[in-house]
Amino acid sequence: MKLVCAQSDLSTNLSLVSRAVPSRPTHPVLANVLLQADAQTNQVSLTAFDLSLGIRTSFNAEVGQGGAIALPAKLLVDITSRLPEGEITLDDEVTDNTATGEGLVVTLTPKTGQYQLRAMGAEDFPELPLIENTKAIHITTTALIEGLRGSLFATSGDETKQVLTGVHLTVKQDTLEFAATDGHRLAVVETTNERPLEEDEQQLEVTVPARALRELERMLAHNAAADEPIALYLDQGQVVFAWGNQRLTSRTLEGQYPAYRQLIPRQFERQVTIERRQFLSTLERIAVLADQKNNIVKLSIDSDAQQLTLSCEAQEMGSGRESMSAQISGTNINIAFNVKYLMEGLKALPSTEIQMHLNQELTPVIFTPLGGLKMTYLAMPVQLRS
Amino acid sequence: MKLVCAQSDLSTNLSLVSRAVPSRPTHPVLANVLLQADAQTNQVSLTAFDLSLGIRTSFNAEVGQGGAIALPAKLLVDITSRLPEGEITLDDEVTDNTATGEGLVVTLTPKTGQYQLRAMGAEDFPELPLIENTKAIHITTTALIEGLRGSLFATSGDETKQVLTGVHLTVKQDTLEFAATDGHRLAVVETTNERPLEEDEQQLEVTVPARALRELERMLAHNAAADEPIALYLDQGQVVFAWGNQRLTSRTLEGQYPAYRQLIPRQFERQVTIERRQFLSTLERIAVLADQKNNIVKLSIDSDAQQLTLSCEAQEMGSGRESMSAQISGTNINIAFNVKYLMEGLKALPSTEIQMHLNQELTPVIFTPLGGLKMTYLAMPVQLRS
Repeated sequence: MKLVCAQSDLSTNLSLVSRAVPSRPTHPVLANVLLQADAQTNQVSLTAFDLSLGIRTSFNAEVGQGGAIALPAKLLVDITSRLPEGEITLDDEVTDNTATGEGLVVTLTPKTGQYQLRAMGAEDFPELPLIENTKAIHITTTALIEGLRGSLFATSGDETKQVLTGVHLTVKQDTLEFAATDGHRLAVVETTNERPLEEDEQQLEVTVPARALRELERMLAHNAAADEPIALYLDQGQVVFAWGNQRLTSRTLEGQYPAYRQLIPRQFERQVTIERRQFLSTLERIAVLADQKNNIVKLSIDSDAQQLTLSCEAQEMGSGRESMSAQISGTNINIAFNVKYLMEGLKALPSTEIQMHLNQELTPVIFTPLGGLKMTYLAMPVQLRS
Repeated sequence: MKLVCAQSDLSTNLSLVSRAVPSRPTHPVLANVLLQADAQTNQVSLTAFDLSLGIRTSFNAEVGQGGAIALPAKLLVDITSRLPEGEITLDDEVTDNTATGEGLVVTLTPKTGQYQLRAMGAEDFPELPLIENTKAIHITTTALIEGLRGSLFATSGDETKQVLTGVHLTVKQDTLEFAATDGHRLAVVETTNERPLEEDEQQLEVTVPARALRELERMLAHNAAADEPIALYLDQGQVVFAWGNQRLTSRTLEGQYPAYRQLIPRQFERQVTIERRQFLSTLERIAVLADQKNNIVKLSIDSDAQQLTLSCEAQEMGSGRESMSAQISGTNINIAFNVKYLMEGLKALPSTEIQMHLNQELTPVIFTPLGGLKMTYLAMPVQLRS
């Protein structure tokens, strides 16, 4: 293997794939990045894979001699990112390897000097599961990012909660639905499926680990045009997202996902329309006190005054109270929430104004954006000690 | 006590002084900020003090009724910084304190609502040691910042090393000297003393803890004009820096500071002049490999080729080698350093080009800037295993 490439290409692509390099690899080869160079196409591809999440990217280079080799990810990233712009030569035929002793070595030759790194054989690197023989579903970058942004935050961080640590994706006739819940709150986002399912195709469902989707979100935000179609391949136990020169593959989470649709009430006795940012910044101040105690914020909804009052009493520490105007229908009510769940939901709702839909003090409350994306956020109120 | 002030004034000054609030206070009152309001001058001062480092600032306000009170620092900072711009009323005469129960309470009233915080009596707050009856030494902000920037990094982080955890300040006839060493390297900076000592005054020496000086550096960088004179008051066991509306006070470190001047050689057999940034960025790449091993980088100084070569061999991992041109006088030599000490020194040297002054493989090496500030950085070479 011998190739010449630009420092910026090598560095950018290495830092992309290295997110899938495990920090504590279960096998030495997993601390490596697989480099494959094709002399026919002059393409170099880089792959990292922790046996659950895999990332592959490719870029153009001058490939003098094709081949594949596994290179130490951290060393290569750290050195390459610090090199100045310019051409770099990579070569695995080393004449003088006195420094590194026996074994496979790759030589990295920037303009300014020379680095030799101990490498491993490509044959030791596990195969990346790429299922591209099934039909792809296509979704635009924007719709996918919106779906992830509106759901990922509501997944559970508790690894024992299995399917709840992922986002549940449902591919319907012409919509894609993203759902996430940690058992205390639920977020559901509906976006458009750009390639409607054909008549003989069944509705598909899959739960994808949040960790893989966070990487996907990051990659899309930096490396995909807003209207670029992302191909989504689903198969038993595996999902692949593919666009441009990039692939992200992830195992899926096994197990029945909760039937979340039936948790969402359809009728409401009360409705509050309110400016989202003002609501959020007020909550952030009240949260300073709530944080000292049990994280509970009280909402007093006053229909007569068309006013929402947020308050918190942290005994021994202090208390706070702020009011804001709102459009309120239905009778007055006091209701309490975990302030963190309210703030996270409000941050994710993508509109200037939002609506709260309520029934009683202890029944689920729904938050929806006013216009724009189809998103539903459900939070369970908590009991107020009086 | 009752006052009206701008949110921005209160928030800015709180965040300044709160750096001296200990994270784990040994006494409850130390988790507070002392607020003193003067109805005559319409000045409000804030003080935080951890019994070693103290910070006091003041600002204008409409003081309706003077007084002093100790307020919970973290809560007050967190709430105030999140409030929108506008006027805030602070009042410690509370009529309705059902929420907070018995005891001292302060009411914070922004436009949007009301916060009540449990407070403590000002009389519980320890007196800030302010020695302003001795004559001040004056130094400009720029000179002080330069002195700190060139010395602070070389202090020891090991609390058992006592005086070495501080910067040693020597006030001479018309210069100020900053010195710091952790036993492995030494940094000395000389800046101008704007008020020359009078004939009857003796040379002063003091060692100030790095922690206090880091806060000083941060405060100066954000809150002092470049040519503002900083007054420096020295007394037994205490030092005070004062400018504008701000005071920083610190205990000094007791004990004999090493006689560092005698460590610095006066004559050298070899000299290397080199571009600082290129030297530094090359070291940063070589450090990636050195980091895997014993942090040692080898410098090969080749007088014939007028070339400096940096290299590192991390067995089992790899090796690296880079060369750069330099102006070299004296015979060829190989010499090795801890790469971290070299990098830290090069970062602190304030010039485009620097000079290395060397004698033998294992004698102290001096680094100086070419032009500008008077700074000397001494690093001890390490033995090269061949």
